[in-house]
Amino acid sequence: MSHNSFGHLFRVTSWGESHGPAIGGVVDGCPPGLRLSEADIQPFLDRRRPGQSRFTTQRREPDQVRILSGVFEGRTTGTPISLLIENADQRSKDYGDIADRYRPGHADWAYEAKYGLRDPRGGGRSSARETAVRVAAGAVARLVLGETVRIRGALVRIGRHAIDEARWNWDEVDRNPFFCPDPGTVPVWEDYLDGVRKAGSSVGAVIALEATGVPPGLGAPLYGKLDADLAGALMGINAVKAVEIGAGFEAATLTGEDNADPMRMRDGAVRFESNHAGGILGGISTGQPVLARFAVKPTSSILTPVPSVTRDGAEIEVATRGRHDPCVGIRAVPVGEAMLACVLADHLLRHRGQNGGRRDRQAGA
Amino acid sequence: MSHNSFGHLFRVTSWGESHGPAIGGVVDGCPPGLRLSEADIQPFLDRRRPGQSRFTTQRREPDQVRILSGVFEGRTTGTPISLLIENADQRSKDYGDIADRYRPGHADWAYEAKYGLRDPRGGGRSSARETAVRVAAGAVARLVLGETVRIRGALVRIGRHAIDEARWNWDEVDRNPFFCPDPGTVPVWEDYLDGVRKAGSSVGAVIALEATGVPPGLGAPLYGKLDADLAGALMGINAVKAVEIGAGFEAATLTGEDNADPMRMRDGAVRFESNHAGGILGGISTGQPVLARFAVKPTSSILTPVPSVTRDGAEIEVATRGRHDPCVGIRAVPVGEAMLACVLADHLLRHRGQNGGRRDRQAGA
Amino acid sequence: MSHNSFGHLFRVTSWGESHGPAIGGVVDGCPPGLRLSEADIQPFLDRRRPGQSRFTTQRREPDQVRILSGVFEGRTTGTPISLLIENADQRSKDYGDIADRYRPGHADWAYEAKYGLRDPRGGGRSSARETAVRVAAGAVARLVLGETVRIRGALVRIGRHAIDEARWNWDEVDRNPFFCPDPGTVPVWEDYLDGVRKAGSSVGAVIALEATGVPPGLGAPLYGKLDADLAGALMGINAVKAVEIGAGFEAATLTGEDNADPMRMRDGAVRFESNHAGGILGGISTGQPVLARFAVKPTSSILTPVPSVTRDGAEIEVATRGRHDPCVGIRAVPVGEAMLACVLADHLLRHRGQNGGRRDRQAGA
Amino acid sequence: MSHNSFGHLFRVTSWGESHGPAIGGVVDGCPPGLRLSEADIQPFLDRRRPGQSRFTTQRREPDQVRILSGVFEGRTTGTPISLLIENADQRSKDYGDIADRYRPGHADWAYEAKYGLRDPRGGGRSSARETAVRVAAGAVARLVLGETVRIRGALVRIGRHAIDEARWNWDEVDRNPFFCPDPGTVPVWEDYLDGVRKAGSSVGAVIALEATGVPPGLGAPLYGKLDADLAGALMGINAVKAVEIGAGFEAATLTGEDNADPMRMRDGAVRFESNHAGGILGGISTGQPVLARFAVKPTSSILTPVPSVTRDGAEIEVATRGRHDPCVGIRAVPVGEAMLACVLADHLLRHRGQNGGRRDRQAGA
Repeated sequence: MSHNSFGHLFRVTSWGESHGPAIGGVVDGCPPGLRLSEADIQPFLDRRRPGQSRFTTQRREPDQVRILSGVFEGRTTGTPISLLIENADQRSKDYGDIADRYRPGHADWAYEAKYGLRDPRGGGRSSARETAVRVAAGAVARLVLGETVRIRGALVRIGRHAIDEARWNWDEVDRNPFFCPDPGTVPVWEDYLDGVRKAGSSVGAVIALEATGVPPGLGAPLYGKLDADLAGALMGINAVKAVEIGAGFEAATLTGEDNADPMRMRDGAVRFESNHAGGILGGISTGQPVLARFAVKPTSSILTPVPSVTRDGAEIEVATRGRHDPCVGIRAVPVGEAMLACVLADHLLRHRGQNGGRRDRQAGA
Repeated sequence: MSHNSFGHLFRVTSWGESHGPAIGGVVDGCPPGLRLSEADIQPFLDRRRPGQSRFTTQRREPDQVRILSGVFEGRTTGTPISLLIENADQRSKDYGDIADRYRPGHADWAYEAKYGLRDPRGGGRSSARETAVRVAAGAVARLVLGETVRIRGALVRIGRHAIDEARWNWDEVDRNPFFCPDPGTVPVWEDYLDGVRKAGSSVGAVIALEATGVPPGLGAPLYGKLDADLAGALMGINAVKAVEIGAGFEAATLTGEDNADPMRMRDGAVRFESNHAGGILGGISTGQPVLARFAVKPTSSILTPVPSVTRDGAEIEVATRGRHDPCVGIRAVPVGEAMLACVLADHLLRHRGQNGGRRDRQAGA
Repeated sequence: MSHNSFGHLFRVTSWGESHGPAIGGVVDGCPPGLRLSEADIQPFLDRRRPGQSRFTTQRREPDQVRILSGVFEGRTTGTPISLLIENADQRSKDYGDIADRYRPGHADWAYEAKYGLRDPRGGGRSSARETAVRVAAGAVARLVLGETVRIRGALVRIGRHAIDEARWNWDEVDRNPFFCPDPGTVPVWEDYLDGVRKAGSSVGAVIALEATGVPPGLGAPLYGKLDADLAGALMGINAVKAVEIGAGFEAATLTGEDNADPMRMRDGAVRFESNHAGGILGGISTGQPVLARFAVKPTSSILTPVPSVTRDGAEIEVATRGRHDPCVGIRAVPVGEAMLACVLADHLLRHRGQNGGRRDRQAGA
Repeated sequence: MSHNSFGHLFRVTSWGESHGPAIGGVVDGCPPGLRLSEADIQPFLDRRRPGQSRFTTQRREPDQVRILSGVFEGRTTGTPISLLIENADQRSKDYGDIADRYRPGHADWAYEAKYGLRDPRGGGRSSARETAVRVAAGAVARLVLGETVRIRGALVRIGRHAIDEARWNWDEVDRNPFFCPDPGTVPVWEDYLDGVRKAGSSVGAVIALEATGVPPGLGAPLYGKLDADLAGALMGINAVKAVEIGAGFEAATLTGEDNADPMRMRDGAVRFESNHAGGILGGISTGQPVLARFAVKPTSSILTPVPSVTRDGAEIEVATRGRHDPCVGIRAVPVGEAMLACVLADHLLRHRGQNGGRRDRQAGA
């Protein structure tokens, strides 16, 4: 058990505060012999990096990752991989005014209720900055999964503006600052978010994830379910309030007939004709694409004053100045992808562990 | 790590198949000295038990629980509590016709992809019957939490018919066969489900959960978050496809101003003026009610034939006869409550573990 | 984490008290498709069963194991295997006189210091009776390891009487009531233990374990070491006070030259010319036989009164009447074998998990 | 599960290779509010540091620890504490000649059997250099335990030369380069080790550990036993081959009468009149001093050539030149102390977790 680790056989332990000297993580259990260098990780960190458009926080962080262990002559050795990312732009001089007050909607109050004290600099451990470690670990997880597994994410809603899913085009995702798969929605979001940003406000978002090429058989009944682990991993991302697999909440409105995913044979293999299940049945992957969505709340850092209290019990109004994402959901896209990658890599190794002896038979399944 | 356990300090290991001789579980880590007998568990099992109305499966199971260990002279001893529930009404003679075919939407195909074989009798391990063990463990968890923590659940949607939340009355929940908190909706659901049942169809549902009296400080950053664990626990219940905490997906549509939960002082203590957060900030309980919702898909067992395949690769149509719940979401209410209780009990013990030395100070928080 | 489980991928959860209705365990993570029935487990339980000679406790327990889950048509399904053994001969009427006093050398005082209360009937959870569950789990572990791995144990010392290791003959082990590999020592032990037994005394013992056919590569640096896990597993057996791997304490007295295990090639494979390492280097199996020894203290249940105290703080003398093993080390032989089997099975699955993708290459190592 | 972590509530994850840029670890679960700075850790690292006498390796490492997270204004915050120690004196140019050959008695062959490749520079992950991380974590564990728990270690045997235990004086331990509690033995060891060192040989050792002030009730039946965890932790230290608790192997030679630890009352509290149990009964601490011993083999790095093989299967002789400890057991003293501290801290938190609610009652036990 650990409060700051996730996964079992592919296991990530994360550490670091927003305004400490560095953040980092340890990836334990990575199979040996995989080619790995900083160059395999950096592109994913760059996608998450702040300050790349006017729609994300203006904190300037190069987010250069260093590998401190677990790699020899360009290959993983099976020993723990230590990843370190220095904090360059801390500005922790600013924190004084929030040390004694609780920002509503932030973890300030909850941390102090738990621990009796907290590191107030930039939110300390609760800062979204930590998600860089998740993204770095996710890059390693992708190598474990190999090239046949493809993991992608997209932003499908900002506030009240959802995309038109009929226009979905994965190729568009990296052509706009929103990871938006629908080019028609991009200008709508630009206008909308400019307004939000200028008002010092913030807004929520929904992210969709997809993994294709996932082998059937990952996951396990009943408390090692792939969907349960995925739900936990996604809900554990900062500011996430909801998670769906496949049809999600819509499944509650359907009949069994409408929700059924018929099975047919094609080219000697089983094929499903729809995917309400989101690629997971009984907690185990079916070989269909794994589909998940999650909702991110609007960040609580807004210019409008909100009633709050101080540590001493005085009632105050708190407005948050400084550098913040008007829509933290944007940068949650690469984070969500990373968590999906980590969960799948872990379950791949777990499956091999229990079922390794019969892989040949399964290959024909 | 275990595929069939959940929790860390309050840890439940479950075993058993639908049509085996029995199902059961082991609760490890229960604090010593709590008064516990079968009579503390049975009422919760009775709420989940099948066959109590025409709207649930007609399988007749007394679901009598036996405590085989961990209790001496009516008190828990701190050693593992073994719970056993015999399977009375197996009818496993029926299973022959489904051993070689995959029921669409069921775990049949996924289990076989994973393990190369499966127990087809009544769905084997993937049967909702296993949820009786969760309910039994949840009853123990409630004792760990004590009387100040109150856990309740209600059904708020069946298919396209949602309740009117303005009429919510917790007292109504146990007065109808649906755990429905809105008496005005009960006749609507009766008519609707009668139709579903007679048509041999099925329909999904949404369950709402609430825990009041939860002490602040439960949960932990960043991978031991209370909401992440809760999401995993609820998504791990059979047929669940979505989970929300607090405002959930709606939070994605809100601005920071609308989503804020202002804080004020009342009687010397902090009070939140709304609860979009669902009682959890930064993965840690705030002392507000913990609020969660989850969606249950329609059971895949329907009379309408659905295209499927056999183990040998033949294309067939599968219709499911026999005893099934037209809306498995109904009986998911006590199961959801139980999972919430188990997660909270685990986090209470974990919190004590790390933070026990400073409880006095915290009591004043 | 669990107080009553061991292993990670091959994971055993144990429950039950000496004088409760039953004891049992859940084996989770067993690979699917293995042939398993009660008949595979019972012979190992029979070797451990009490009352088979005058040198073990006279408690009469048939120790019949029942499999309640996880097996279908004679094969494991990959789901948890629930094992149940009823307690037949409890005689718990006797316990009254020890409920308020602490038997010196027993766990009575320690349990009460921890939990504030205890089940005094026959020692409750701390009774050696629980080791039956370990032996049953070990029988399943042997199936996981397969026929190429052979696990054997022998008693090599009772009190001051050690065997002559030069006369070691594994075939003798099951031909005497001591699991003694040296027939010349058997009559010595018979005479000695008859005296101990008649005096109402007890005596310690040393057990040696060997596993041959263990594939190289099991274990992992640095906190998943095979020898560390084995040491923990053996030290966790009731009354064990010491564990050695390979040369053990003798290694402390040797020089590097004397302790070296030279390596040579034979028939294209690496061969070690000695085995001071006990088959484990750097926490990882080398393919040599895994060798371990452990010491069992004399049971504290003796007729000679020993100074003790009551719960109320009165000073008393405690003598233990009733059925006890004069040398609990004898029955520890099958228990030690079982723990070795469980640890190896767990590490085999763990190794497959992390290293499954390169097994072919390794097969040639 | 993790291959490179230990502990449950007080959990340490270690990473790093001997000749990589750095080694380090993450301490998760440390209670909040403890005063902690590098100055609390450095003295323990200095005790373990190489090159402090002619009897340890001449590698020059300052072993300066940096705390990268988890501390704010001099106090722990409850979030993970990242510890980093740079490797200053790698000399990894030397490794070329051992990359293709297996040093007998080292982990070279075993790592390669497991992973198919290895980092040969200075032994990579299997180097004793990693023990610096254990020592750093142990320093944090001591703070968790508080000042009432005192943990000490001493060297009691080098090769065939054991101390005279009648002359034991804890004050002597830090007055000689051997952590020897018997001043009369120091000159004997000096002469002996000078000979070993000049011969390019090595020799084994035995270390004794003691923890006083340990509260009763730490540990748990049956697979969370304090002695089992301690045995695993000590056996997991590099080169350790044997572990004893209390009377250890000698207990096997004793009768129940001789091994008994009588209990009496003194000043209203229970007192044990001897300590064969080593402070642990039934896997749970009794409040007596916790006593353990462990044996360290002679390092395999010796000048005398030993038969070995190359990766290509050629038979060779391997002699190890370079900087090595003639008796690695010396520096194992602070490492053993650290592991004991970590195990006790973990069990203290675990005990609080399950039993926190009744601490008051227990305080009177």
